[in-house]
Amino acid sequence: MNNPTLDKLFEDQLADTYYAEKHILKALPKMVKAANSKELSKALSNHLTETKTHVARLESVFELLGKKPRAKKCEAIEGILKEAAALSADYAGTPSNDAALICAGQKVEHYEIANYGTLAAWADQLQYTEAAEHLRLTLGEEENADKLLSGLALGGINQSADPIPA
Amino acid sequence: MNNPTLDKLFEDQLADTYYAEKHILKALPKMVKAANSKELSKALSNHLTETKTHVARLESVFELLGKKPRAKKCEAIEGILKEAAALSADYAGTPSNDAALICAGQKVEHYEIANYGTLAAWADQLQYTEAAEHLRLTLGEEENADKLLSGLALGGINQSADPIPA
Repeated sequence: MNNPTLDKLFEDQLADTYYAEKHILKALPKMVKAANSKELSKALSNHLTETKTHVARLESVFELLGKKPRAKKCEAIEGILKEAAALSADYAGTPSNDAALICAGQKVEHYEIANYGTLAAWADQLQYTEAAEHLRLTLGEEENADKLLSGLALGGINQSADPIPA
Repeated sequence: MNNPTLDKLFEDQLADTYYAEKHILKALPKMVKAANSKELSKALSNHLTETKTHVARLESVFELLGKKPRAKKCEAIEGILKEAAALSADYAGTPSNDAALICAGQKVEHYEIANYGTLAAWADQLQYTEAAEHLRLTLGEEENADKLLSGLALGGINQSADPIPA
């Protein structure tokens, strides 16, 4: 690679995140279907709708850079989603079904929070003002999705998985 | 699996996190060595010391449960660390060297934040009071490490990677 500066790294991680979002889009319907709790199913279903917007926002960011959207294979999200699918299968139909789904979902959310936080900071540095706005909107929605999952876990799902609830 | 409840899921994710920490322990010395900035190198080196404590704390939690420490292959951290190594190699010796390292480091931190947050909430539910304390100590250190990396990125490292800094 020729002396790559922050603009190249930004595009690189944008392509990584685009790959990740596309794969999350494929994984989410299975999670929606696997959820027992109506609230969890609805939260995951809402996040599926948000994820479609996140993909569109990334496409807008590529456009703002004068580039075609590009996906770069992201080993991290592949590992996270592989683990999520295994965890969901291992606990399917058990008292821990939904607790396992939330656990897997929050690993995905945190990967995205790390990515969008970094991309937004780089966009600021590169003075990609409009791109930074798009990225921060998505960052906020990922953080909110993570908080919603925590709320559902603490609001009854962890308790219903506990063999001897207090 | 027989009707597994939250205590089984807790042990399962404890073993996942134990595997993750052991692999992070192997990856961190390469990151310390790869850093150009003295501050980044020191921050990663300090986190290496903390990570040794995190492994020991997980062993204490297994002990509190009356179990031997067990590692369960964690596909997620394997993917995250594989991507981190590739990112670091791609930008080694370039102006983006340290920005790429911080990006990779924050993906690792966020995976751990998700895991420890979940484990601490489950420990509360299961009334594993001492285990919850250990897990929250580590959670706080992971969150702090993530913030330190953000501070270094915003405090000069992103700017030094920018081809046309403002």
